[in-house]
Amino acid sequence: MLNNITRDLADHDLRGQVADYIPQLAQVSPQHFGISVATPEGALYSAGDVSQPFSIQSISKVFALTLALGKRGDGIWEYVGREPSGDPFNSIVQLEHESGKPRNPFINAGALAVVDAIMMGHEPKEVLAEILSFIRFLSDDASIYFDHEVAASELEHKHRNASLAHFMKSFGKLQHDVDKILGTYSHQCALAMNCEQLARAGLFLVSDGINQVSGSRVVSAQRARRINSLMMMCGHYDGSGEFAYRVGLPGKSGVGGGILAIAPGKGSIAVWSPGLDTVGNSLLGTKALEMFTQNTGWSVFGH
Amino acid sequence: MLNNITRDLADHDLRGQVADYIPQLAQVSPQHFGISVATPEGALYSAGDVSQPFSIQSISKVFALTLALGKRGDGIWEYVGREPSGDPFNSIVQLEHESGKPRNPFINAGALAVVDAIMMGHEPKEVLAEILSFIRFLSDDASIYFDHEVAASELEHKHRNASLAHFMKSFGKLQHDVDKILGTYSHQCALAMNCEQLARAGLFLVSDGINQVSGSRVVSAQRARRINSLMMMCGHYDGSGEFAYRVGLPGKSGVGGGILAIAPGKGSIAVWSPGLDTVGNSLLGTKALEMFTQNTGWSVFGH
Amino acid sequence: MLNNITRDLADHDLRGQVADYIPQLAQVSPQHFGISVATPEGALYSAGDVSQPFSIQSISKVFALTLALGKRGDGIWEYVGREPSGDPFNSIVQLEHESGKPRNPFINAGALAVVDAIMMGHEPKEVLAEILSFIRFLSDDASIYFDHEVAASELEHKHRNASLAHFMKSFGKLQHDVDKILGTYSHQCALAMNCEQLARAGLFLVSDGINQVSGSRVVSAQRARRINSLMMMCGHYDGSGEFAYRVGLPGKSGVGGGILAIAPGKGSIAVWSPGLDTVGNSLLGTKALEMFTQNTGWSVFGH
Amino acid sequence: MLNNITRDLADHDLRGQVADYIPQLAQVSPQHFGISVATPEGALYSAGDVSQPFSIQSISKVFALTLALGKRGDGIWEYVGREPSGDPFNSIVQLEHESGKPRNPFINAGALAVVDAIMMGHEPKEVLAEILSFIRFLSDDASIYFDHEVAASELEHKHRNASLAHFMKSFGKLQHDVDKILGTYSHQCALAMNCEQLARAGLFLVSDGINQVSGSRVVSAQRARRINSLMMMCGHYDGSGEFAYRVGLPGKSGVGGGILAIAPGKGSIAVWSPGLDTVGNSLLGTKALEMFTQNTGWSVFGH
Repeated sequence: MLNNITRDLADHDLRGQVADYIPQLAQVSPQHFGISVATPEGALYSAGDVSQPFSIQSISKVFALTLALGKRGDGIWEYVGREPSGDPFNSIVQLEHESGKPRNPFINAGALAVVDAIMMGHEPKEVLAEILSFIRFLSDDASIYFDHEVAASELEHKHRNASLAHFMKSFGKLQHDVDKILGTYSHQCALAMNCEQLARAGLFLVSDGINQVSGSRVVSAQRARRINSLMMMCGHYDGSGEFAYRVGLPGKSGVGGGILAIAPGKGSIAVWSPGLDTVGNSLLGTKALEMFTQNTGWSVFGH
Repeated sequence: MLNNITRDLADHDLRGQVADYIPQLAQVSPQHFGISVATPEGALYSAGDVSQPFSIQSISKVFALTLALGKRGDGIWEYVGREPSGDPFNSIVQLEHESGKPRNPFINAGALAVVDAIMMGHEPKEVLAEILSFIRFLSDDASIYFDHEVAASELEHKHRNASLAHFMKSFGKLQHDVDKILGTYSHQCALAMNCEQLARAGLFLVSDGINQVSGSRVVSAQRARRINSLMMMCGHYDGSGEFAYRVGLPGKSGVGGGILAIAPGKGSIAVWSPGLDTVGNSLLGTKALEMFTQNTGWSVFGH
Repeated sequence: MLNNITRDLADHDLRGQVADYIPQLAQVSPQHFGISVATPEGALYSAGDVSQPFSIQSISKVFALTLALGKRGDGIWEYVGREPSGDPFNSIVQLEHESGKPRNPFINAGALAVVDAIMMGHEPKEVLAEILSFIRFLSDDASIYFDHEVAASELEHKHRNASLAHFMKSFGKLQHDVDKILGTYSHQCALAMNCEQLARAGLFLVSDGINQVSGSRVVSAQRARRINSLMMMCGHYDGSGEFAYRVGLPGKSGVGGGILAIAPGKGSIAVWSPGLDTVGNSLLGTKALEMFTQNTGWSVFGH
Repeated sequence: MLNNITRDLADHDLRGQVADYIPQLAQVSPQHFGISVATPEGALYSAGDVSQPFSIQSISKVFALTLALGKRGDGIWEYVGREPSGDPFNSIVQLEHESGKPRNPFINAGALAVVDAIMMGHEPKEVLAEILSFIRFLSDDASIYFDHEVAASELEHKHRNASLAHFMKSFGKLQHDVDKILGTYSHQCALAMNCEQLARAGLFLVSDGINQVSGSRVVSAQRARRINSLMMMCGHYDGSGEFAYRVGLPGKSGVGGGILAIAPGKGSIAVWSPGLDTVGNSLLGTKALEMFTQNTGWSVFGH
């Protein structure tokens, strides 16, 4: 079935626009498409370009939030909310209306607050080592790396995120130095992973906090469910309602064209297609997930 | 277990504020509490004040949307969106920014657009007869009625909704006369139901569009799932993220203190407690659902 | 000089768009142009179409405010502010952010609050008689009339203003019936006047509250100055800064293409050209005033 | 008369809040009060604390704008608008709605755009030398200086302005390095002047661009009038309408408690009282100007 989806989508002319705010993303071919499905039983189904690493960008916010909840527990909700924002990923309007507290951890402002929560006085280098270690553990793959070229380029185009960070800082909502937060965040977003690695990394959210394949408990059942709820409500910015309507699973997209979707009890799905729709989510990736869930009946809204 | 929850909550001092914009709602005692759970197997579990009718208010939007989708299909999405708004239920700011198109069918503006879509040239009296007939069919209970006193009182305090309706009308987003739409909407919200009736009315959303107890298919599986997705994303206004985080089920609240929550494949839960939290959702009702889902493990985000 | 301005502008191709929300305004030819200057010494200089009545629309807000201040004094500032809004004339966003209190008396919402303040329990017919009587007194011309056809057409397209009025009503900011307020407001805006009448009507604002020609004191010096300040700050919606920058005089525009500008101590200028710029102010009218003030040196910002 | 005003205000209990975002401003006594009036004939009337320098803060934006217009002419309006914003001085909401272009040169975002326009590739040190030289020339007083302690403290609390600057930079609206712009801006705002110096510095705006006392033309008559129009429309943030209504003169306030007001053809008035009203303008300073203009009849809205 994954091959069918891949074949069907190969002919699609409308592939959206590849992100172009940094050259490293702009030069990725919109022809790429990959999909991998990892199940708690240890199976891994794949089709298309599933071995080529891509920049996971905002998908990393799921893993950063997981780390932050581990370190800070519910304390992080003092600095970031958990409501959908109804606004684009980089909007600052809501921040002004709500005194510098971001609506949720998956818009950029919220992700910066999450990075700040993880740092706990440590230097960016140490924090990044911890993030990388965590994602390698989740994927059970030590080859995952930061694409430093992407990170450097992000930093050169940091102004919108710098604006968000200084804004929160002016309200006392960030503890660490703004430049250190931005440096850490840029690298976090520059994590390079392929579909297979990403699908495996999502397994702990499929099975109530346990990676059934490796047998390790990553978070409590309640926490896994709550992370899924945040992905459902806020995972696609102002396209979250559309994703829930069409795909029916919690998911998180990245501007690199990847999406991680979780079907509790069933499997973790990673798709990659670099062309984006108008709100910044992978156009064919969403389409592929819609086809996949229609074929499999996987949906949290039915049974 | 329902009795335990009822007993635990009986002692709660913090019960929120009963809606006070019309006297009929203001005079309801905050001491009421009821919870009913209907399962596809035909069981009905209840505790507390489950036989006393209350004003379902915005919960009626779920049934109105179901009717509108039946009549108009996906055509209704031309007039109303399906994204969470991040705003209070009666906000008009979003309408101005988006040319009179409401964000979703569960904020007041969107519900008015849904009423407009249902009317199709008919008079309010005919439309209301159809709505009542539909809800009696869903609940399998012919005793359900409109509380005309509540409806009349709502009309006297119609100004905020009238503002929303005239605003949409000025953008050509409503086809019918504003006063007729407001009259119909006020009655729809004044449906009086008790917890048991409401829980049964939700059964078609539990089982992919089929009411397993009566054996009748109400909507297609896809449509049932999509209605659930809208309840999940938008069912509690700017408290939708909080509800998803704490309860983990699609749900829809009403300012009368009722909440209908759907656990796909498992059951339909109706709670009623008139005191509201700051965003207008039943305070103890939400608490009860949180306790219920923690006890039962019912959640769309786990397995 | 007025003839020169008129001649220069006669060749202008860019005349803006005639207001088209009602047929009565849409069918007015954009070729019309008139300018009249009335001085405290009793002179009246005119060029172009200065005898043809046009719909003064929002310019009437200046006279309504003057009446309201006479009846209510500073009490009206409880219901309407006196700050520029930075928003279009019919925006509702600001109303929601500020609990139904309009920013100033010259945006539509504020003008509705002013009508409400004038009514004081009287019926629209009586209030309109009073407004008409006042404007005839100011212009010393008993032939001024309401264009009932325009008023009726405005009422058919009332939805945006109805939305504003119901919104304020929902916050308790309006005392009278919304339909009566809208009916009165529609007629007030449908006052038909020509440039000569309008220029004479502004004379009391030129001379600190006294119409020097008729010798009658209309308002106190302080009140006249304050009305001028409001025209300066808020008279052209979100084009007020532009008008101050280019023309340098207090002024009030109407969507019928008229503008009344006041040069304290020097004269009252009325221009009419139906084509509007993008924020709804007469395009050639503004241009004519700019030429006129550059030629005469009349400006409140120089000497 | 100035002595009477000073005496009357000396007993005022309600003096507002001294700005407290940096210690250097917070420690200034709210008891200070000074007023100076400079006339084109060369007279200088003073009462109160008129020899003590204070931080002119945002009043410096008038002089910076004058410099920028000299260097760039009307080209600067590509980067900054000239409409009142209706928002607080440090709001970022408008920037997002209008793609990073500030509404006017007197809100913080606009002032940063003005600094950027002045820099023209030069280093902050050179630009600051030019600003200081210009203000010394305007005041004919070589003793005016930058308070480097204030500037340094501002930089430590720069986050809100840094947010504004990075935001504009992300839209390509700023040419220079953000840190250099912020450094220059902080020093510009830290100009220390007393009432007498400030009143003299405003003389060129009294007399159509000519400082009549020194005999030097600073700007053209048209430019002087236009700067006055901007002060009138935007000089007191979201209190600009109130200032126009009560005082009736173009003016510019600073968070250090100073206000410069211009009566064209009559005089330049500088007041200083550190306590601020809720929108950030000197409370007693505004009161003093209101008393002064009522006594003298100076107002651009009367004659």
